[in-house]
Amino acid sequence: MRPSGRAFDQLRAISLEPGFAKYAEGSCLARFGDTHVLCTASVEERVPSFLRNSGKGWVTAEYGMLPRSTHSRTDREAAKGKQSGRTQEIQRLIGRSLRAVTDLAAMGEMQIKVDCDVLQADGGTRTASITGAYVALHLAFQKLVEAGKLSAVPLIDHLAAVSCGIYEGQAVLDLDYAEDSSAQADSNFVLTGLGGIVEVQGTAEERPFTRDQFQTLLQLAEKGVAELVTAQKKALGLE
Amino acid sequence: MRPSGRAFDQLRAISLEPGFAKYAEGSCLARFGDTHVLCTASVEERVPSFLRNSGKGWVTAEYGMLPRSTHSRTDREAAKGKQSGRTQEIQRLIGRSLRAVTDLAAMGEMQIKVDCDVLQADGGTRTASITGAYVALHLAFQKLVEAGKLSAVPLIDHLAAVSCGIYEGQAVLDLDYAEDSSAQADSNFVLTGLGGIVEVQGTAEERPFTRDQFQTLLQLAEKGVAELVTAQKKALGLE
Amino acid sequence: MRPSGRAFDQLRAISLEPGFAKYAEGSCLARFGDTHVLCTASVEERVPSFLRNSGKGWVTAEYGMLPRSTHSRTDREAAKGKQSGRTQEIQRLIGRSLRAVTDLAAMGEMQIKVDCDVLQADGGTRTASITGAYVALHLAFQKLVEAGKLSAVPLIDHLAAVSCGIYEGQAVLDLDYAEDSSAQADSNFVLTGLGGIVEVQGTAEERPFTRDQFQTLLQLAEKGVAELVTAQKKALGLE
Amino acid sequence: MRPSGRAFDQLRAISLEPGFAKYAEGSCLARFGDTHVLCTASVEERVPSFLRNSGKGWVTAEYGMLPRSTHSRTDREAAKGKQSGRTQEIQRLIGRSLRAVTDLAAMGEMQIKVDCDVLQADGGTRTASITGAYVALHLAFQKLVEAGKLSAVPLIDHLAAVSCGIYEGQAVLDLDYAEDSSAQADSNFVLTGLGGIVEVQGTAEERPFTRDQFQTLLQLAEKGVAELVTAQKKALGLE
Amino acid sequence: MRPSGRAFDQLRAISLEPGFAKYAEGSCLARFGDTHVLCTASVEERVPSFLRNSGKGWVTAEYGMLPRSTHSRTDREAAKGKQSGRTQEIQRLIGRSLRAVTDLAAMGEMQIKVDCDVLQADGGTRTASITGAYVALHLAFQKLVEAGKLSAVPLIDHLAAVSCGIYEGQAVLDLDYAEDSSAQADSNFVLTGLGGIVEVQGTAEERPFTRDQFQTLLQLAEKGVAELVTAQKKALGLE
Amino acid sequence: MRPSGRAFDQLRAISLEPGFAKYAEGSCLARFGDTHVLCTASVEERVPSFLRNSGKGWVTAEYGMLPRSTHSRTDREAAKGKQSGRTQEIQRLIGRSLRAVTDLAAMGEMQIKVDCDVLQADGGTRTASITGAYVALHLAFQKLVEAGKLSAVPLIDHLAAVSCGIYEGQAVLDLDYAEDSSAQADSNFVLTGLGGIVEVQGTAEERPFTRDQFQTLLQLAEKGVAELVTAQKKALGLE
Repeated sequence: MRPSGRAFDQLRAISLEPGFAKYAEGSCLARFGDTHVLCTASVEERVPSFLRNSGKGWVTAEYGMLPRSTHSRTDREAAKGKQSGRTQEIQRLIGRSLRAVTDLAAMGEMQIKVDCDVLQADGGTRTASITGAYVALHLAFQKLVEAGKLSAVPLIDHLAAVSCGIYEGQAVLDLDYAEDSSAQADSNFVLTGLGGIVEVQGTAEERPFTRDQFQTLLQLAEKGVAELVTAQKKALGLE
Repeated sequence: MRPSGRAFDQLRAISLEPGFAKYAEGSCLARFGDTHVLCTASVEERVPSFLRNSGKGWVTAEYGMLPRSTHSRTDREAAKGKQSGRTQEIQRLIGRSLRAVTDLAAMGEMQIKVDCDVLQADGGTRTASITGAYVALHLAFQKLVEAGKLSAVPLIDHLAAVSCGIYEGQAVLDLDYAEDSSAQADSNFVLTGLGGIVEVQGTAEERPFTRDQFQTLLQLAEKGVAELVTAQKKALGLE
Repeated sequence: MRPSGRAFDQLRAISLEPGFAKYAEGSCLARFGDTHVLCTASVEERVPSFLRNSGKGWVTAEYGMLPRSTHSRTDREAAKGKQSGRTQEIQRLIGRSLRAVTDLAAMGEMQIKVDCDVLQADGGTRTASITGAYVALHLAFQKLVEAGKLSAVPLIDHLAAVSCGIYEGQAVLDLDYAEDSSAQADSNFVLTGLGGIVEVQGTAEERPFTRDQFQTLLQLAEKGVAELVTAQKKALGLE
Repeated sequence: MRPSGRAFDQLRAISLEPGFAKYAEGSCLARFGDTHVLCTASVEERVPSFLRNSGKGWVTAEYGMLPRSTHSRTDREAAKGKQSGRTQEIQRLIGRSLRAVTDLAAMGEMQIKVDCDVLQADGGTRTASITGAYVALHLAFQKLVEAGKLSAVPLIDHLAAVSCGIYEGQAVLDLDYAEDSSAQADSNFVLTGLGGIVEVQGTAEERPFTRDQFQTLLQLAEKGVAELVTAQKKALGLE
Repeated sequence: MRPSGRAFDQLRAISLEPGFAKYAEGSCLARFGDTHVLCTASVEERVPSFLRNSGKGWVTAEYGMLPRSTHSRTDREAAKGKQSGRTQEIQRLIGRSLRAVTDLAAMGEMQIKVDCDVLQADGGTRTASITGAYVALHLAFQKLVEAGKLSAVPLIDHLAAVSCGIYEGQAVLDLDYAEDSSAQADSNFVLTGLGGIVEVQGTAEERPFTRDQFQTLLQLAEKGVAELVTAQKKALGLE
Repeated sequence: MRPSGRAFDQLRAISLEPGFAKYAEGSCLARFGDTHVLCTASVEERVPSFLRNSGKGWVTAEYGMLPRSTHSRTDREAAKGKQSGRTQEIQRLIGRSLRAVTDLAAMGEMQIKVDCDVLQADGGTRTASITGAYVALHLAFQKLVEAGKLSAVPLIDHLAAVSCGIYEGQAVLDLDYAEDSSAQADSNFVLTGLGGIVEVQGTAEERPFTRDQFQTLLQLAEKGVAELVTAQKKALGLE
């Protein structure tokens, strides 16, 4: 029995609200239950120096948590003067994942910076970030298409992410904080709309897990991501 | 004629939404038109070292802007590794203002940290922050009273803030970004419910202003703050 | 009765010593009683990037305190690795004030950096800084005129600053440390030679102050600044 | 055909040299071909504050690369004033992996810090680090047992790591730099002596990979880790 | 012929002005020609952690230059967020030198922090700093003796410093900036009143120097330090 | 009697192993007894900005210690976010010393960065660093000559360094950690193959030393450096 009463293969209530931020070229407030992440995509003309005059574009991401997004207050990274290792790990993951489905050559020499800021955190902030970031990025590309700066949205597939874990001996989908903090194993899967694997991060918390358990988690993730992609399409008006 | 079509002494549409953040002891989403600030109040047992064993409490504030709260993207302070001078100036102002209406001795040895995070910025973020921060702080104190940890809310008066300025030769109330960026003078007033002055910050942008002009700005601010205090009382269920 | 025995509207002994620093294009040791600030103005050819090819110049300021300028030793900011919020607030104020009386277009594309370093601190370091900085800036401009690089000193008015406050219920001019640390309210006024208001910063320390009290403080400041401007003119050899 | 001429399931020449560092309680120079990592384990009495008076111990890791360990020189992190996101990600991975096979309660209230410093880098530095770190940690525990401070080595299983990837369409084991820089997918597996999964990190570089490909990579890793564990046992004199 | 017209073994005009800073327990404005350094000694009760409960005291030093102490403006270290290697090297030298003549056991468990801040720099700032720092330290100890906190000044000898160098082939005493910037070799000597060597730092700038040249520099330094010690005694009222 | 049993004028076992690092243009593992320093020289096309278009080259150095190179673990500078004053002092010394024997004009506009990383520390790491750095630098220059980028190695003399000190009243050569930590005086000498003095750093630890003692230390250093230069020539295949 999960603390939330969900079935083992049930996502939390998912909401992807496009256009939440007025000024960003693309934005999405992604809600996975009580986890709320504001994702914005900002178009910049300037690419990183290693891409200058390459004709290629770049997509990168930054991640942050509001100090009181968490159950008890977390110190503000700007005040501490540095981003934690966890923050850097997550923002590198988001950027890498988005680039895996972006045709960087087709986007031409421009850069899109995606900011994922956690307004409220109840577990799974990185997977909600990736899922919302994809929507924000897609919207920014649509705007560039509408403005005649791109001929088509240079995304080669859909992309969403979900966590799975072993909670009280049972494989479950989309862990919330209550489950995450006592799970035996925790994995994050970033998958494409066609089912390809973009990123897998599995961590045994208490004791190692087996190849079969891992297989089960991956299957759960495939089910969850399929549902998330459906929600993305709806939010993007693609269906 | 103001860009927004407002009368010279008219506030933007004001909304103070209490309880926006689920985990904070007190919270308020303050909206002054398109300026949206999420204010949370977090209760901590630990006071700063200069107050240990003094029996007195402390209220402090931190301020931040999401990178794409602004019309074009602003660099993330956590990534740059330091808070700007502007950020520090604003958070010091918020903290000082809140302490001016708090009975620190009555609150006993505890600390409340108020975080003001700008989700969207269209001018006047510091005055919206102070106005929302007061609500979040009041709610946190109410919660402590309900929990029997305080006998009464240790706030000695209401507190709100508004900006005024000279825009195209005319004194106007509650500048938005379009006005702020071309105003001749810009002043921020932090006033109490009873009309006392807590903080005044006046800055001549283009040319010095006169004593009479300053007087006019203060009168506008008194009108604006009175309306904001009414909105606060409604949000707090005090009327 | 003030601790120093001064009348309520009496400045401390003022001394503005031009040319204190041998190498700077302009310099002034400003003494307001036991508060001593060394102000230097350095001319640089390079303007900030936002002004390149604009034909306009820039004036900026930095502020610091020697570790043992204060009654007890203060940690050195260079050793701590960052400037405090207070330092940044003050140096932003000094720069903004100086720019308000400088004709940036007339100065052409060059930058003047004014450094205000407190050798000894007995209250009012920011107002002594601004008052001395104006002299240093004026001297640097004079030198540029003498060198034929400018046709006239591009300053549109005189500028000086003074603090006023409510000390033991009485409005007094130019607070020293003994008064400042127990004042009920403390305001800094940056005014021009013609009486215009450039910056006003009023802070209620213990309890809010009234509009009338504020009015009284402004009148005291006008008297004080008039005397400071007279001293500046003498130091600059303009009378 | 692999650049090195190795078979698809062949490790590089592996060498685990215990006791390389004279002063550390445990140390190992791990060589995976031209990748050389010096791993040291340092015993400290002081545990992190969240474990004080818990009776439990802690194992943590730090990672660094000498500036000219790489093909072209990399900037020194100490000179830049911060560790990169990549460095932090790797050292968090090493620490988490080691803790997964350590009985923290059995080790009692002490801390072991494992430093992994890359002397030469030809791909796979994180997997060589983990494999060598385990040896250094084991040696430090042995020393504590010999000194009578522990009754047995508190490690519940062996632990080693290896990378696998898709190189020119072929799944291969233990990528070197030439392969890594052009691989289609790259995965790191941290496995135990009994075959349990401790960490999995899979990243699609160019295009997503399939569930079957991932399965193949895992099988290769199981083969590689088995060989690494054999080498560890030999280095530790356990066989 | 030296640029200043001095004889090869002639110091610049030396002035040691005690009590320059009003609040410090000991202070001295040291002038070596146009090099002016303000030295203050601050007594603190708290010793560094490695000396707690040892019964011993500590003397340490910090060094800084005002941005426009130099011929052209130098960036402010507090603004850059770190002290340069040169600054750290100099402040370590000052502290080490002072400790060499202090009886740390006799001073008991207290700390004296000496700040050397360069108001104007014309070469030889580190030697002027040490010479003035000794006076400030001595005065602070005298104050502690007068207050009955120490029975005698715990300084075992006098201490002063001077630079010597090879300028246009000639060994000269007390280099100023014009000489220093083109000297073939530059050495700093920290010597005691009795002629003992506390620190020697010799650097060949253009080409190596010989053992005989070095000998000559040391003799010049002995002459210069003897004169500086005489000036110190006079400033301290010891003769 | 020295702790190691060495004669007063005897170096530790010296080993200079060229080519230790595979990728660097020049490298040397320098061993002075149990002190082991890995020195690498990296050629870069880009010179510091003050040398651009000057036709001159530059040699610079960085220094670091592995955290467990020392008897007990030292905090990692990259993790602390800054290099210590000691580190900066040493790396400035290494760079300055190397430049003193390099014909910067003859090298042309390129830069060589020498990294000295201490793998194991038993005293005298800075002198081992300089001695090994010279070998690495020479090898890098040789490689440039072989590649036809330079016509000859632009080094005007050999260069090596050694420490001497007064240990239990006796002048001794090449202090190890046991001696260094209780020496009365400690001096580092950087000398050329022809006997010229490049750098001298003498520090009295407990009490000042005399001119005669200093003379004796210098003579010991001359003997030691002569032996080190012989070892360098052998390592470089020059004899």
